Amino acid sequence: MSLEKLFNPKSIAIIGASSEEGKVGNVIAKNILELGYSGEVYLVNPKYAEIFGKKCYKALSEIENDVDLAIIAIPAKFVNQEILNNSKNIKNYVVISAGFSEIGEEGKKQEEELKKIAKENELNILGPNCLGFIIPSLKLNASFAGGMPEAGNIAFVSQSGALAVAIMDAAKKEGTKFSSIVSVGNKMQISETEMLEFLGQDENTKVIGMYLEGIKEGEKFIEIAGKIAKIKPIVILKAGKNEKTQKAISSHTGALAGNDEIVSAVFEKSGIIRANNLEEFFVLLNFISFSNTVPNQKVAVITNAGGAGVLVSDAFSGKKIQLADLENETKNKLREFLPAESSVENPIDLLGDARADRYKKALEIISNAPEIGSVICLLTPQEQTPVAEIAKEIIKFKDKTDKNIATVFLGGEKVEKAITKLKQNEVCNFSFPDLAVTAIDSYSQWNESRTAKTKNPTQMINEKRRAKVLEIIAKAKSENRQALYFGESAEVMEIYGINTVESFEIENYHGRNLGYPVVLKVDSDKVLHKTDKNGVILNIENEMKLSRAVSQMRTNFPESHLIIQPMAKKGAELIIGIKKDEIFGPVIVYGLGGIYAEFLKTVDYLVPPISLGQVEKALFSGKIKFLFQGARGQKKYNVEEMAKILMGISSFSLEIPEISEFDINPLIVYNNSQEAVAVDVKIII
Amino acid sequence: MSLEKLFNPKSIAIIGASSEEGKVGNVIAKNILELGYSGEVYLVNPKYAEIFGKKCYKALSEIENDVDLAIIAIPAKFVNQEILNNSKNIKNYVVISAGFSEIGEEGKKQEEELKKIAKENELNILGPNCLGFIIPSLKLNASFAGGMPEAGNIAFVSQSGALAVAIMDAAKKEGTKFSSIVSVGNKMQISETEMLEFLGQDENTKVIGMYLEGIKEGEKFIEIAGKIAKIKPIVILKAGKNEKTQKAISSHTGALAGNDEIVSAVFEKSGIIRANNLEEFFVLLNFISFSNTVPNQKVAVITNAGGAGVLVSDAFSGKKIQLADLENETKNKLREFLPAESSVENPIDLLGDARADRYKKALEIISNAPEIGSVICLLTPQEQTPVAEIAKEIIKFKDKTDKNIATVFLGGEKVEKAITKLKQNEVCNFSFPDLAVTAIDSYSQWNESRTAKTKNPTQMINEKRRAKVLEIIAKAKSENRQALYFGESAEVMEIYGINTVESFEIENYHGRNLGYPVVLKVDSDKVLHKTDKNGVILNIENEMKLSRAVSQMRTNFPESHLIIQPMAKKGAELIIGIKKDEIFGPVIVYGLGGIYAEFLKTVDYLVPPISLGQVEKALFSGKIKFLFQGARGQKKYNVEEMAKILMGISSFSLEIPEISEFDINPLIVYNNSQEAVAVDVKIII
Repeated sequence: MSLEKLFNPKSIAIIGASSEEGKVGNVIAKNILELGYSGEVYLVNPKYAEIFGKKCYKALSEIENDVDLAIIAIPAKFVNQEILNNSKNIKNYVVISAGFSEIGEEGKKQEEELKKIAKENELNILGPNCLGFIIPSLKLNASFAGGMPEAGNIAFVSQSGALAVAIMDAAKKEGTKFSSIVSVGNKMQISETEMLEFLGQDENTKVIGMYLEGIKEGEKFIEIAGKIAKIKPIVILKAGKNEKTQKAISSHTGALAGNDEIVSAVFEKSGIIRANNLEEFFVLLNFISFSNTVPNQKVAVITNAGGAGVLVSDAFSGKKIQLADLENETKNKLREFLPAESSVENPIDLLGDARADRYKKALEIISNAPEIGSVICLLTPQEQTPVAEIAKEIIKFKDKTDKNIATVFLGGEKVEKAITKLKQNEVCNFSFPDLAVTAIDSYSQWNESRTAKTKNPTQMINEKRRAKVLEIIAKAKSENRQALYFGESAEVMEIYGINTVESFEIENYHGRNLGYPVVLKVDSDKVLHKTDKNGVILNIENEMKLSRAVSQMRTNFPESHLIIQPMAKKGAELIIGIKKDEIFGPVIVYGLGGIYAEFLKTVDYLVPPISLGQVEKALFSGKIKFLFQGARGQKKYNVEEMAKILMGISSFSLEIPEISEFDINPLIVYNNSQEAVAVDVKIII
Repeated sequence: MSLEKLFNPKSIAIIGASSEEGKVGNVIAKNILELGYSGEVYLVNPKYAEIFGKKCYKALSEIENDVDLAIIAIPAKFVNQEILNNSKNIKNYVVISAGFSEIGEEGKKQEEELKKIAKENELNILGPNCLGFIIPSLKLNASFAGGMPEAGNIAFVSQSGALAVAIMDAAKKEGTKFSSIVSVGNKMQISETEMLEFLGQDENTKVIGMYLEGIKEGEKFIEIAGKIAKIKPIVILKAGKNEKTQKAISSHTGALAGNDEIVSAVFEKSGIIRANNLEEFFVLLNFISFSNTVPNQKVAVITNAGGAGVLVSDAFSGKKIQLADLENETKNKLREFLPAESSVENPIDLLGDARADRYKKALEIISNAPEIGSVICLLTPQEQTPVAEIAKEIIKFKDKTDKNIATVFLGGEKVEKAITKLKQNEVCNFSFPDLAVTAIDSYSQWNESRTAKTKNPTQMINEKRRAKVLEIIAKAKSENRQALYFGESAEVMEIYGINTVESFEIENYHGRNLGYPVVLKVDSDKVLHKTDKNGVILNIENEMKLSRAVSQMRTNFPESHLIIQPMAKKGAELIIGIKKDEIFGPVIVYGLGGIYAEFLKTVDYLVPPISLGQVEKALFSGKIKFLFQGARGQKKYNVEEMAKILMGISSFSLEIPEISEFDINPLIVYNNSQEAVAVDVKIII
C-alpha cells in the first residue's frame, strides 16, 4: 500500500499523548503541536480530558473525523489490540512503543501477530520500537526527537534512533537539509526496501541515505534498489564489517548483519554507494545534496599552497576519478595571468599571495575546459589571503557552472565564516582533502553506473533444463547419495554450457585410450576432499603404473567408484562456487585457485541474476582482472568465455535452488584458444 | 652544532625589519616585539633610523651586544654576503628569504654557496625559503605567520609554510598546544633529521609531528629516527603516494619524494607512526598529546546507543588493537547496576536513557579491569542525556586512571560545550568513531615497537667476504661482462650462506650424473630474461632429449655458456631482490614468485641493516605470513631459515654496494625440512 498518507498525513492522532514532562507521549505531542505542522491533530489518552489546553479523546474511536495517521506511544501489551480495534478506519500507524521482537521470544510473537493484523487489514505500520519520522517541509516532527531540521533534499532512513538524533544535531551545525528523516525501528513491515520504493518517487528527495544494521528480504531489496539507484543516488552506511560487530548487531536488534563482502557485492550490483564509515556517510550526503552530476571523471585542483595541493593529489591514490591532464590551451590561458613561479600543472598552484582575482580567473578558465568535470578549490588562510572574497568568487562560479565543485578551506577561525557562507550557498566544504576526493569519486561512480546502458538483468528459469537436472538429482537421492558422481556433475555442467574434462569410470575404461599421463580419482560422496585424503593420483605415466594405482585405490577406498581422466594441460587455475547467503540467496564466488588461493584472497562475488555485460565488467575490474588484460609477457585470457561460464553458473544457481553446495575446483582456463575445462566438480544435493 | 641557541635565543636581530605594512620584515618584527618575547630584540635596516619607536641599526655589525639569532628577511641576492659578513659573531640564522634552490639552477648555486658558508663558519641556518619558527613557551614568534599558539607538548615541523599556517589556525579552534612550530623550508642544512635530533632532547616536546614532502640523507634519517622513536612518538605525514604527486613535489620543492612503499618500510623499521592523511595527522597529534601509553592493546567501548557502538566495533576491522573480551567478573559487576536490556558484552550498551551515574559506574568498573587498556566513551545526545554531567564524569575518570581514554560525542550543538570542556581537561574527543580507533591503534603500536627489546640493528661489514666478492666481480669485469655467470653468483651466494641449485657448465657435465629430469639454461649477461627468450628448457627427461636440447640452444645462442641443473623439487616459489633506493640506499624486496607475482602484489620491503628478530617479525606480519603460520592443510615453512637468507642478502647489500642489480628468482622453500634453494640468481655489476 502506498505510504503517501503515512508520510504526508492531513490529520494525526497521538495515542498515549501525555502532559507529563519526559514521557514519550508528551514529547511527541509537543513536537507535532508546536513546531508548525498545519494538519489536524487529535490527542488520545483515557487519563486526560485536556492536554495543553486541547481536547483529549478517551479513545481513537471517539474522533469523528478522518485520521490519516495514528502514532502509538502506549505500552507494548496494548498496541496490537488498539490497532486492531481501529483498523477499519485508520490505515497508517507509527508504533513508537518498544517491547517487540527486540526483547526476545514473547516480543517476537507479538510482533508476528501485529504483522498479521497489518496484512489482513491492509495497514501501513512504521516500527515498532522506532523514534518516528520527521518531514521538515511539512514542519511535521512525528518523533520523540526534539527540533525541526531545515527542509532540503536528503532523505535519511535509520535503523538506529539514537544515531538519527545525533545526525540531526550535527546537521544543524553543518547546514544539512532534509526531505525526511525516518526511524524504521524493528522494520516489521516497512523496511529499507519499502522506504526505497517510497523515497525513489518522492519529488523532494534528491539523495537517499540509510544507516542499516541488517537487510531484510535480500532479493526484493536487490530488485528495488537496482531500480531506484537508476533514478537517484542511494548512500548506505551498512554496519557489520567484522564478526564481533555482526554478533553485537544480532544481540542489539536481532537483525542478521550478513556476510560483509556479499553486502558490498550486492551494493555494487545495485548501484548503491557504500559509505565506509559515519563520517563518509554524512559528508557524502551533504556533498550530493549540493552537487551536480558531471560528464567526466577528471578533476582539477586549484590551491594557494603547494603542500596542500600535494595532499589532495595523494588522495587520488586508488580512486577511479583522476587529476585531469590539462589541455595545452588551458595551461596557456592560466600562464597568461599567473606569476612565473606558479604551477599550471594540475594541482594548479596560484601561490601563497593569491588574491580573489587569481581564483576567479582560474575558475573561469576551468569552467571553459571540457577536459575537467569537477574542481576542488583549496585554500590556506595566509596573511594576505582574502578568504571571504575568494569564497564569494567560488559561489559565483558555482552559480554559473555545470561542473562539480568542492572546497577545502583549511584552518579554523580564519576560514570559519567563509565556510558558513559557502554552505549557505550550497557549496560543500570539506575540513580535510581526502574526503573531498572520496565524495566526488563516489558520486561520479554512481553516475557512471546509472548511465551505463545495462538494464537490471533478469534470468529466465528454463524449466526443461531444470527438469533434466532434477532427474539426475533424484537418481542420486534414490541411491542414498549426498553428492553426484563426476559423470553426473559433468552432465549438469554440460546443460549449463560448461565443458568438463573427459572422464571414464574404471569399469568402462578398458579398451579406451586417453593417452598418458592420466589421473585416477575416487568418485564418492563419502570422499569430498579428495586431495586431502589421497583420493587423487596425478600424472600416471603408463599402463603398469595405472594398474598399480588402481589396486592402491581399491585398497584405500574399497567401496568407491574410481574414475580416470586425462591430465589437463597447464593453464590458469580458477575456482568457482555457489554460496547460499542467508539474506541474498545464491551468490557466485570466483577467483584464483591453487594452493595459496585461501591466503591471497583473490575472490570476487557475483549476485544472480546477472547480465553478460555485468559479468564482463566485473571480470575487468575484479581481483583477477590481470588475466583478461593481457599484462606484460602474458597473452590475454578469454573474457567472453569466462563470462559465459559464470552466466551458466548463475542460471544453474537460480534454476536449481535444491543444490546445497557447489564448486568447480579447478576450472582451468587458457590463453591459447583452448577451451576452458572444469577438472573437478562437486555438487552436494 | 647544537640548535639550542637557535630555538631558545636570548637576543634576536631582524635583518630587513620594516615599518611598511604587509612586508615580511614588518610582520616578523611585530610578531617578535608584540607577542611577549622577553629577550633582546634588534632591528636592522639601513633605510630607517627607527621602527615602531625603536632604534633601527644600519647593519648587524653596529649592534654592540651579543646576538644569539639573526632572522634574515632581505632579497635573496644579499643574503649570502650578509651572513658571511657576520659569521664570526653570529652563529644562528633563520633565512626567510625565498629565491634559492626552489627557483632553479641559479638559486641552487646560491644555496650551495650558503651551505658552504654555514659549514666553514659553523653556523646553524634554518631555511632558506621558510616561514620561520614559533616557540609558544617563550612567547617567541620568529615567523611571518600571525598569532601565538598555546604552549603545550606537540612539536610540529613542516616542509610547507602554508600548511603550518592552516594547522595553527585549526589548532586554535581545537585547543591544540605546541612546544614548537618550525618551518624548515628548503632544508638546506636543518632538515627533518636535525630537527628530530633536537626535538628528541627537548623536554617540552612529548610528540613530534612532521609534514614532509621529501626526506634528505635517508640513511642518517633512519639512524636518528630509530633512536628518537624509542624516546617519544614521531608522527609523520609524508606526501608522495602516487606518481602525479611525486611529480608535483619535485616541481614544487625540488625534493625527491621517493618510493612510497619504501618510505612506509623505513617508517615501520624506525618506529615512526605514519599518518595516512592530514586529518589523521592532526588527530593523532592531539590524541597523543593528551594520552597515556597503555599496557595492552585491548579496548572497551561504552555507549548509550547500540547503533553507534556497532559503528565503533566496525572500526576495529583490520586494526591491531581489539575490542577487549571482558572477564566474567567485569561483566558481573556491570550487570549488577545496568538494566536487564543493556549489553555487557563489549561494546557495553548503557542504553538510551543512561544518565551520568551509569557512565560513572561503568568507568569505575573498567578502571579496575586489567583486561582493558583503553576505553572509548561514546555518547549520542538523546532527550534524556545529561551531556555535560557525563563529560564531567569522564574528566574525573581521566584524572584517576592510567588507562587511555578517547570520547566520541556525536552531534552538533548539543555536545559542543561538553566537547570544549573535555578538551580543556585534556580528554581527546573525536567527531566520528573511526579516527578514535585509528588513534589508539597507532599510539599503541608505537608503544609496542618502542618497548620491543630489539636494539637498533647494526650489521658489521666483513671485509674478508667483501674482498672475495670483489675479486669475482673484477674477473667478470675483466672479461667485459655486465653480469656474473651462474657459477660465480652461486659462489657469492655461498659466501652469504645461501644455498643454490647444483649446476654444471655443459663442458664439464660429461661423465657426471645429476639424474633426470634436468634443466638446460643459457648463462650469459646478454640474455637476462631467459624465460622470455626461450633460454631455458625445463624437464629434460633423458640423455637423448638433453643432447637435442643442447644443439637447439647452441643454434639460438651460439656464443653463450650453457649450464645444466637438476629440476628443483616443488615447493613455494619466492623472489628476493635488492632495490637501490635513491634516498635510503639498498632495500630488500621479497615476496611470492610465480607467474602472477606481479599482479598479486605480495611484495614486502626490508631496509638494511636489520636484525634477525626484526626479519622474523616482518615475515610473521607481512604478506607471505601464511607460509610461516602453518595454515589449514599445510605444514609451516621454516621461518628461521628464511630469516637467515634475508639476513644474508642484507649483509650482501651493505657489503657490496657495487652491485647494480640483484635478484633470486625463484628461491624455492620447502616445508618438509628440505633446504631452501636459489634456482636462478642474477647479479648485475
